[in-house]
Amino acid sequence: MPAFINTHFLLHSPVAERLYFNYAQKCPIIDYHCHIDAKDIAQNISYRNMTQLWLSGDHYKWRLMRSAGVDERYITGDASDYEKFLAWAYVIESSIGHPLYHWTHLELLRYFDIKEPLTYANAESIWNITCQKLASDEFTARSLIRRSNVELICTTDDPVDDLSWHRMIADDLTFDTTVLPAFRPDRVVDIEKSDFTEYIQKLSEVCGIAINNLNDLQMALRMRLDFFGENGCRLADHGMERFVFDQKLIEQASQVFANRLANPSMALSDDDCCAYRSAMMVFFAKEYAARRWTMQIHFGCRRDNNAAALQKLGINTGYDTIAGGTFVTPMAQYLSLLTEQAALPRMILYSLDPNDDPLIDTLIGCFQDGSVPMKVQHGAAWWFNDNLNGIRNHLKSLASQSYLPGFVGMLTDSRCLLSYTRHEYFRRILCDYLGQLVTDDEFNEDMDLLGSIVQRICYTNARQMFMDSEENNG
Amino acid sequence: MPAFINTHFLLHSPVAERLYFNYAQKCPIIDYHCHIDAKDIAQNISYRNMTQLWLSGDHYKWRLMRSAGVDERYITGDASDYEKFLAWAYVIESSIGHPLYHWTHLELLRYFDIKEPLTYANAESIWNITCQKLASDEFTARSLIRRSNVELICTTDDPVDDLSWHRMIADDLTFDTTVLPAFRPDRVVDIEKSDFTEYIQKLSEVCGIAINNLNDLQMALRMRLDFFGENGCRLADHGMERFVFDQKLIEQASQVFANRLANPSMALSDDDCCAYRSAMMVFFAKEYAARRWTMQIHFGCRRDNNAAALQKLGINTGYDTIAGGTFVTPMAQYLSLLTEQAALPRMILYSLDPNDDPLIDTLIGCFQDGSVPMKVQHGAAWWFNDNLNGIRNHLKSLASQSYLPGFVGMLTDSRCLLSYTRHEYFRRILCDYLGQLVTDDEFNEDMDLLGSIVQRICYTNARQMFMDSEENNG
Amino acid sequence: MPAFINTHFLLHSPVAERLYFNYAQKCPIIDYHCHIDAKDIAQNISYRNMTQLWLSGDHYKWRLMRSAGVDERYITGDASDYEKFLAWAYVIESSIGHPLYHWTHLELLRYFDIKEPLTYANAESIWNITCQKLASDEFTARSLIRRSNVELICTTDDPVDDLSWHRMIADDLTFDTTVLPAFRPDRVVDIEKSDFTEYIQKLSEVCGIAINNLNDLQMALRMRLDFFGENGCRLADHGMERFVFDQKLIEQASQVFANRLANPSMALSDDDCCAYRSAMMVFFAKEYAARRWTMQIHFGCRRDNNAAALQKLGINTGYDTIAGGTFVTPMAQYLSLLTEQAALPRMILYSLDPNDDPLIDTLIGCFQDGSVPMKVQHGAAWWFNDNLNGIRNHLKSLASQSYLPGFVGMLTDSRCLLSYTRHEYFRRILCDYLGQLVTDDEFNEDMDLLGSIVQRICYTNARQMFMDSEENNG
Repeated sequence: MPAFINTHFLLHSPVAERLYFNYAQKCPIIDYHCHIDAKDIAQNISYRNMTQLWLSGDHYKWRLMRSAGVDERYITGDASDYEKFLAWAYVIESSIGHPLYHWTHLELLRYFDIKEPLTYANAESIWNITCQKLASDEFTARSLIRRSNVELICTTDDPVDDLSWHRMIADDLTFDTTVLPAFRPDRVVDIEKSDFTEYIQKLSEVCGIAINNLNDLQMALRMRLDFFGENGCRLADHGMERFVFDQKLIEQASQVFANRLANPSMALSDDDCCAYRSAMMVFFAKEYAARRWTMQIHFGCRRDNNAAALQKLGINTGYDTIAGGTFVTPMAQYLSLLTEQAALPRMILYSLDPNDDPLIDTLIGCFQDGSVPMKVQHGAAWWFNDNLNGIRNHLKSLASQSYLPGFVGMLTDSRCLLSYTRHEYFRRILCDYLGQLVTDDEFNEDMDLLGSIVQRICYTNARQMFMDSEENNG
Repeated sequence: MPAFINTHFLLHSPVAERLYFNYAQKCPIIDYHCHIDAKDIAQNISYRNMTQLWLSGDHYKWRLMRSAGVDERYITGDASDYEKFLAWAYVIESSIGHPLYHWTHLELLRYFDIKEPLTYANAESIWNITCQKLASDEFTARSLIRRSNVELICTTDDPVDDLSWHRMIADDLTFDTTVLPAFRPDRVVDIEKSDFTEYIQKLSEVCGIAINNLNDLQMALRMRLDFFGENGCRLADHGMERFVFDQKLIEQASQVFANRLANPSMALSDDDCCAYRSAMMVFFAKEYAARRWTMQIHFGCRRDNNAAALQKLGINTGYDTIAGGTFVTPMAQYLSLLTEQAALPRMILYSLDPNDDPLIDTLIGCFQDGSVPMKVQHGAAWWFNDNLNGIRNHLKSLASQSYLPGFVGMLTDSRCLLSYTRHEYFRRILCDYLGQLVTDDEFNEDMDLLGSIVQRICYTNARQMFMDSEENNG
Repeated sequence: MPAFINTHFLLHSPVAERLYFNYAQKCPIIDYHCHIDAKDIAQNISYRNMTQLWLSGDHYKWRLMRSAGVDERYITGDASDYEKFLAWAYVIESSIGHPLYHWTHLELLRYFDIKEPLTYANAESIWNITCQKLASDEFTARSLIRRSNVELICTTDDPVDDLSWHRMIADDLTFDTTVLPAFRPDRVVDIEKSDFTEYIQKLSEVCGIAINNLNDLQMALRMRLDFFGENGCRLADHGMERFVFDQKLIEQASQVFANRLANPSMALSDDDCCAYRSAMMVFFAKEYAARRWTMQIHFGCRRDNNAAALQKLGINTGYDTIAGGTFVTPMAQYLSLLTEQAALPRMILYSLDPNDDPLIDTLIGCFQDGSVPMKVQHGAAWWFNDNLNGIRNHLKSLASQSYLPGFVGMLTDSRCLLSYTRHEYFRRILCDYLGQLVTDDEFNEDMDLLGSIVQRICYTNARQMFMDSEENNG
């Protein structure tokens, strides 16, 4: 019996296979949004065992384990690494239909050449094999990246970060993959957070200027933007539960910020927050547009829903959910204002709610200006939607409402260096979708054209957006 | 030409067939949520004709008849039973794609051995055959249940119910199926309803204590909870148009309740209702958790939308619809508070809005505590979603976001004793889905494992939740 | 290699093919909702080239071109017609998965007998062929309509329109297709628009009566309704971003209207607008019901989102999007009130948000009165949803929740006389869906019954609603 992940995995037509093997598979990876720590690459770390590599920080796996009835001791508790691996094997064995079932086995296959599915029964054997392999040079951070044919990695970084690890990587001429920072100023925008003023103080210190008002803040941020730019940054990212925007409130932002600094314990009204956020989102977009950066906005995630778990385990431990609710009106007004002010940067919008797919796909159509294909993008199926059906639905909706060949394509959004197989996963689904359209006589069987569409989505579009020189890049 | 419901009905792969025939079909039925009247079972009633059995109270069929242009006389009016049956035959004959088309023919096939589709042309013949069969002992309430291999039925009961019919059934040792009450205190929670104080008065009488304040009310309810528990109850149910919850308002609940009793005609504000509902929902959850019961919440149904029809025909006559709107924030806060207070019972959430599928499936992941698989469940595709596509979509979303093998599975939610075929319908769809995943190389072809997953979803999970002794049960 | 649009295009089973070729293909077209200008038919215009025919006013194509990175000069700018055609060829060539890819090639095939896909490489040749053909008598407006087997066209007309073009067409006995006006009084309802009072003044002049209050307005409108009725109108249409309705506010409508007339520059509150809109929507529904007209409501479109483009290009230039948000409560209350007052006309509801599909499909079930099949309809997949997946999803949801054989079917909603191929497109998808159900053993293989269902949806239902004499028509 062949392993279920065979050559033809997810490719259900000859056209799909030809597109995958002749085009998609050959493309290098541009991983333009991830959460890898540049330090791990700089120090070229290696991993003691699969629990360290897979389970030590991956709250997506933790959720699945809790859902399957595994005691917390075997998840974040004091069980041994081996016991935790056994618990994971027990859970993943029967997780039919879950993306982690595919990711897990793609990772075992591609990096460890393990062809059998991980089960409770073979967990000990796989533990031993993987421990042995992890000790070899083939499994250091840089080796994993090299073996994955990664051309570019964009990390996710706070404006106060000194980017020393990025520079160390850049200075090392023996490592070919480009590792660039991405600018994620959530802590600057989240004025309602309790540690906001503390953070502003830190920013002030990093920049060496006093921040007493909104002008100061923006001057400091420009310094950091310049610094990130000098270090190759081409991409920013903003995350929020709900996207809010109200142009009328913007003029109040200075006062709100001043009040917040003056009295950190004073409660902010919804309007106060919206005023400040609106002003800052316009500020940032203008700065990005001027620098020809791309701006990502991730919205629709309600975080840390379990107060008891937050208390015990902290943030980012597997208690996030889709927020629901509407984004169309404020987002339309925001993009319209930026367009009016000739300050709309390239944009990638992600919502955690899959019901938003058609709403995003039609909204972005209102702000394409013809300067480049898909100036405003609907980002790849995000997080809870990053699975077989989510990716298929995203592609179908995008193709129906927008211009699929202009899509900037996949990213890992991951903390783990084995996650590059998600690009393979995406590419197989993409080729299967395109192949199906041809097989069903819904598109002309022109393999050169189809192949070039595959290459654009898997590689060229992202390369042009994040790596090519500005002259070629609208 | 074979009847369209053949052996392979809905099973599109050999793996699906093996899973269905070797595993699913053999499982007894645990029908843990239905609206059968225990009296009908206690009295072992029989039915004069198909109109009595099918059409006399089934407003889901009425809706379809009205949509097809049938005059109300043939639906709820004074036409004869035979005329109504003819009208139904006329309608169902062409109801392509509607779940009632499948349910109708599964019921005719499984209980009456009728293999041809019901049409206007053969309606007279089928009327005669069914009338004859219905007169036999094979078609009493208990015979239908026995023939359906039903191990457990949970009815839906008001807290003031004396459960005499349930006890009569339990005392009859000749009937093997367990029939347990389920606790549905909507009338206690719906403080805004015009007959609320009347109902509280009735509760007071049943309990033999005065109810003058919220403490009294909760004492009375504990008496009823104990009484239901003594009669084997393991399950509660709450229904509402929108789920509301606000922890900050809870402290006002006593005053709201006192005001309502003192002045039944006074209008309640939204906040008043929310205060009382929030307090009661926390109260009930704690009581259920302490008793190790499971709590169901059904939300998102807007009822009785047609005022003229409500006036003429009353409630539950086919005029309900999907409410839409958001539930995430209040539900997240509710489940978080219960978790903090170590008072989260096993939970099954159902929304009438299929757009909520991914929102529920990610939200429940925030409250799984590892004590049992899927402590917080997303209930089977409910009502308007209980159809082929609705069930498929529910399973796909649940599998993608959660742990499918822990799913507690199907229920009929029905008033009719022929509806057990909906378990067959569900099981075929489930096996087809799993078989498809294997056939498409998306899961390992391990038939023992797959078979055990099928058994868990079709039987074991529900049995453990509703029948097994507490020691084995989280 | 055969052209991708072959005989079997979209028909994936023998049953689907038999249904399409034996039934669907033979049905005349009833195009009951479109935006064709009656003047073009009256004057029997012809077209100089494909840019004039395809690109001069079609903002749906403009959106796609902008998304693909085409400069505005080649879209709405001063590029030559030929250059614009080249740009379109360049874009459509790679627009895999987009409905325009199918529409474009169906139109080239059916009207111009061009079998190869349009590409940048063959654009010059296709330009020349089409220019030549367009000059022939086969390509005048009336010829295109005749060749498309169109029995009825309902245009979309303002209440002040004098319908002279419609009468000219009706008087010309050499043209067989019936061309009727449809009544679209948005400018009467949109009281918040800046040119509202101007419009009321124009209405006053057309009717020859002074409009000083709501009674006057409604008297004037009744005159126009009568006038439209005399010209064969059987259909009205209302469009809005969000459907609002509040019965309690209706009594304020007279005052709101009077204030608006007295002081055109005064801002209206949301309640003011809702009061007036609610009153007018009840007024119109009653008038339509009394005249046995059908009322269409299109909601959920947020228009002109790009302020800079609106400024430069005006309205309807490709900057519209799905509004999102809820409609259930106001729509349920509106339909309930009309039912109570025995004033519910035949109704067709369209939402731009595909997430609304199940909400509409269950809501309409609450207002079917058995007088005719599907008195309240869910209109065909609208605009951004008018694509392969959108149509399939619409049909599936409608079939699951409602009575598919009663569906009034497809319309073009188009300004272009080549768009009748969208009926072919819809019919193929419909037959494929029904054929799939039969092939999958989900419906009985009764070809006569299936054929009659196809005929009803493709032709008979619409004919009965819009053309047959009142006696036969509920």
